[in-house]
Amino acid sequence: MTEFELIRQYFASQPIARNDVRVGIGDDAAVIDPPAGTETVVTTDVLVAGVHFFEDVDPADLGHKSLAVNLSDLAAMGAEPAWFLLDITLPGVDPSWIERFARGLFDLAQIHRVQLIGGDTARGPLSVTITAIGLVPRGAALRRSGARIGDSICVTGTLGDAALALAVRRGEVQVEAAARSALAQRLNRPTPRIEAGKALRDVASSAIDISDGLLADLGHVVTASGVGARLRRDSVPLSDAYRAHLAQVGWDRALAGGDDYELCLTIPRSRADDARAIAERMNFSLTPVGEITAGGGVEIYDAEGRLYRPTRRGYDHFA
Amino acid sequence: MTEFELIRQYFASQPIARNDVRVGIGDDAAVIDPPAGTETVVTTDVLVAGVHFFEDVDPADLGHKSLAVNLSDLAAMGAEPAWFLLDITLPGVDPSWIERFARGLFDLAQIHRVQLIGGDTARGPLSVTITAIGLVPRGAALRRSGARIGDSICVTGTLGDAALALAVRRGEVQVEAAARSALAQRLNRPTPRIEAGKALRDVASSAIDISDGLLADLGHVVTASGVGARLRRDSVPLSDAYRAHLAQVGWDRALAGGDDYELCLTIPRSRADDARAIAERMNFSLTPVGEITAGGGVEIYDAEGRLYRPTRRGYDHFA
Repeated sequence: MTEFELIRQYFASQPIARNDVRVGIGDDAAVIDPPAGTETVVTTDVLVAGVHFFEDVDPADLGHKSLAVNLSDLAAMGAEPAWFLLDITLPGVDPSWIERFARGLFDLAQIHRVQLIGGDTARGPLSVTITAIGLVPRGAALRRSGARIGDSICVTGTLGDAALALAVRRGEVQVEAAARSALAQRLNRPTPRIEAGKALRDVASSAIDISDGLLADLGHVVTASGVGARLRRDSVPLSDAYRAHLAQVGWDRALAGGDDYELCLTIPRSRADDARAIAERMNFSLTPVGEITAGGGVEIYDAEGRLYRPTRRGYDHFA
Repeated sequence: MTEFELIRQYFASQPIARNDVRVGIGDDAAVIDPPAGTETVVTTDVLVAGVHFFEDVDPADLGHKSLAVNLSDLAAMGAEPAWFLLDITLPGVDPSWIERFARGLFDLAQIHRVQLIGGDTARGPLSVTITAIGLVPRGAALRRSGARIGDSICVTGTLGDAALALAVRRGEVQVEAAARSALAQRLNRPTPRIEAGKALRDVASSAIDISDGLLADLGHVVTASGVGARLRRDSVPLSDAYRAHLAQVGWDRALAGGDDYELCLTIPRSRADDARAIAERMNFSLTPVGEITAGGGVEIYDAEGRLYRPTRRGYDHFA
């Protein structure tokens, strides 16, 4: 067995076997059979060593995160994940590294019953590209373009933890061990909000996942929808770890830090009670942080109602 | 406009707009609507600078080839290409490079009416990952596992040109300018055999695309099918450029060189006439090169009927 075949073997022994997969790993291509009445939702994200993660990343974390960021995009469409493909380039073959990577990947895959159906492996600088495919009832996908004036802007979970974890890792901020661990978990093991996206699919007017920071991603929504947004800075939900250091680190990582992988949704006023009831029943947090307005762009106001200007607004790989 | 947006703009202005795309580039994910009665075929391949192509590659060639190698996998399933996603990592942004890359990519996309529906861009060492999605009538996909004893083994086009072009480029072989150019075209601008795959879908018992060399890829077919193969070396189709140098370079690049992107199909004897008629009518070359046998593995015989042993059997990135 060549090392190449060894890699394939790790990925072939996955825990999921869906009955809508006609041809899985091992042929020229996979064949899947989306059920009648659905549309197919497809997304892809690439993670590059030294850009999206540290070279010394725990491979199990990388396996988890590579899939999580793609499932997060499906969540933002209100889609149910079903299948994925994995392209990985590796400088060499370290069986224990690959085994740990596969474990992190498949542990998350199993939670969402998403099956690996294909991929490619090559020698090269370490990077991971995943393409995830999901399903929505015909016409039901959540778009960025549906936000309307007066809609409430809501976010799931808490924001800024991953950006704060990164600052801690870089030595820019000091926190105690417990907070450090809680924050690192949020950076390394983000939770794709699949259940929230599906549950709010028929209630929300628009959705996006927060990968580049709330301001940047909400900016995409208002641009696509031809509206504006007004955010209440002090309503943005913070974790206990972040809030404990708020005086030290300020609001900007919560407003504009990347890698949150929460959802930002807009909810028509008429559906606000429904959305709240769904979140309560399904036990996920959904926090109103502002309203859609007529003016373009995103404005932020502090607790005293004064316009607030963050020091940064988002992340651009090539900026 | 950031450079990142500039890249997106090049890829957003594509020539194809299919009416089965519900949401294209620009949302969290694409939404497509495969027609009733079809199954969906998905494949992905990654090309890495310095591994799959030279760093100084013509970007238009790279754009073409990145898509072609994926369409070739769809061809091997008998699928009709419909959509694709593009992940590209770049060390920096050179607008003229990106423009040329996009032109090579979209010129091929237009031929097959395949629409770019999403992707990702990041800073990193140059590599291109494409995921291509196609359609087959339900249950009609060609598999590697369908070869049966007595089937004729056929290949489209000519073999070994890309491997010979690589040898020329590396200075291992000298050829005159016209041959050099013809061979380079085959290496840099492979033609995915979409029409042949679709036309032979109901006639062939198995198919694979020849990316790692005929011996390696036919080896996958016999393994998957639980059979063996006997090849007639001197029946393997060669281009004029290859044949002119056959005495100098020998058969092995035609037998085991990679990057051909022709199809290797097995045809039941009862359908041999049908296959020949289809190839004639549709004007593609289909050459019988051997038969499926009971024994495992692939054996090669020379013109005198003696067992022939090539010096190599295929390509392994990690070997």
